[in-house]
Amino acid sequence: MRSWRTIGVIGGMGPAATADFLARLVDGAGATRDADHPRILVDCNPQVPDRNAAFAGTGPSPGPVLAAMAQGLIDRGAQVLAMPCNAAHAWAAEIRAVPGAHLIDIVDVAIAAALRHAPAQIGLIAVGATLDARLYHDRAPVPLIEADRRRVQALVDRVKAGDTGPLARDAMAGIAAELVEAGADVIIAACTEVPLLLSAAPVPLVDATAALAQATLAAARGDLAL
Amino acid sequence: MRSWRTIGVIGGMGPAATADFLARLVDGAGATRDADHPRILVDCNPQVPDRNAAFAGTGPSPGPVLAAMAQGLIDRGAQVLAMPCNAAHAWAAEIRAVPGAHLIDIVDVAIAAALRHAPAQIGLIAVGATLDARLYHDRAPVPLIEADRRRVQALVDRVKAGDTGPLARDAMAGIAAELVEAGADVIIAACTEVPLLLSAAPVPLVDATAALAQATLAAARGDLAL
Repeated sequence: MRSWRTIGVIGGMGPAATADFLARLVDGAGATRDADHPRILVDCNPQVPDRNAAFAGTGPSPGPVLAAMAQGLIDRGAQVLAMPCNAAHAWAAEIRAVPGAHLIDIVDVAIAAALRHAPAQIGLIAVGATLDARLYHDRAPVPLIEADRRRVQALVDRVKAGDTGPLARDAMAGIAAELVEAGADVIIAACTEVPLLLSAAPVPLVDATAALAQATLAAARGDLAL
Repeated sequence: MRSWRTIGVIGGMGPAATADFLARLVDGAGATRDADHPRILVDCNPQVPDRNAAFAGTGPSPGPVLAAMAQGLIDRGAQVLAMPCNAAHAWAAEIRAVPGAHLIDIVDVAIAAALRHAPAQIGLIAVGATLDARLYHDRAPVPLIEADRRRVQALVDRVKAGDTGPLARDAMAGIAAELVEAGADVIIAACTEVPLLLSAAPVPLVDATAALAQATLAAARGDLAL
């Protein structure tokens, strides 16, 4: 029997993205029977304060709630933490301040995955808080081209309302196509709702959720030092 | 903002079925934004002792582990519990013995859903422990026709190994067709791996996972008394 570290998922941002992330962890575990899978604890908490409002200064900070969720997961045995929400990583320091918190950073792993394609310019599909917090801008070593945040947010809101239908998918594909036209040779789906609408693009598409699932499993396997 | 009770999921039996169940809870919540969703705590624990081996007397009982998982979820705030595994309900009494445990019973809700179709005979696709524990047999008011447990188990094991491909789907469809030929006018997918291979049958198909998700959400909404 393979020995895994227990994974804790700080989730609910949004709930569909969290369900998608859990499915990817299960699919990616490479297990052939129940007992070969890792234990995964999920806190799918849709009451985390809104990240965009917090960053705009019009709502409370999600930091304390995220730290409390991390603490709860650690108390139940979580050894590796993952948070399938890019924007919430603006408050990652508050999670890391919890004793025993080993958070795999979605931004770091998505940028690493993008750089494997040796891009000259990366197209970034993200919501306002992710852009304003400069989560990707301050870490990517190549120029970023931002997708229009209002159109991205409108589509993200549709996913959160349960709409992943063809019209929403077409609109997201249009956003990706415009990034390529503007010079992006790699695109990062830097919002965990985006891959629910977009599974391919005219250039390599880095799915931050997939990169996070892969890195989380590697850390849980013990392939990565904590 | 809608006020929900917090849902706790006793999961990992198997992990793919748990991920499927979480996705159904999220889809079924009818929410249009994050904050309108229920909080869902998931313990996806693939180390729960094997239900078939336990029922056959060749392995330890999963009861104490299931009770400990229930306790952990309740400690973190879960008010309504659901366990997306039919066979594990043979140990439901040990979960219900945990103070504060309100477990929605997958067998009860699946039978209720089947009876809405006024069947004369129900076809049951289940694994050995579910059959031997008479979970459905002792509660269904109409005769049951059992699918061949060995063929069901072989397909369930394929799902647990990550195979939900066309050959496995065809084989499960064949099992359903044989139940209809044998006289079943309703079929219950009474194993949470089954709906990952079977989404329709020549007669009404009751998906126990779907029935559990619906009843769990109703209880979390407060529509059902606890």
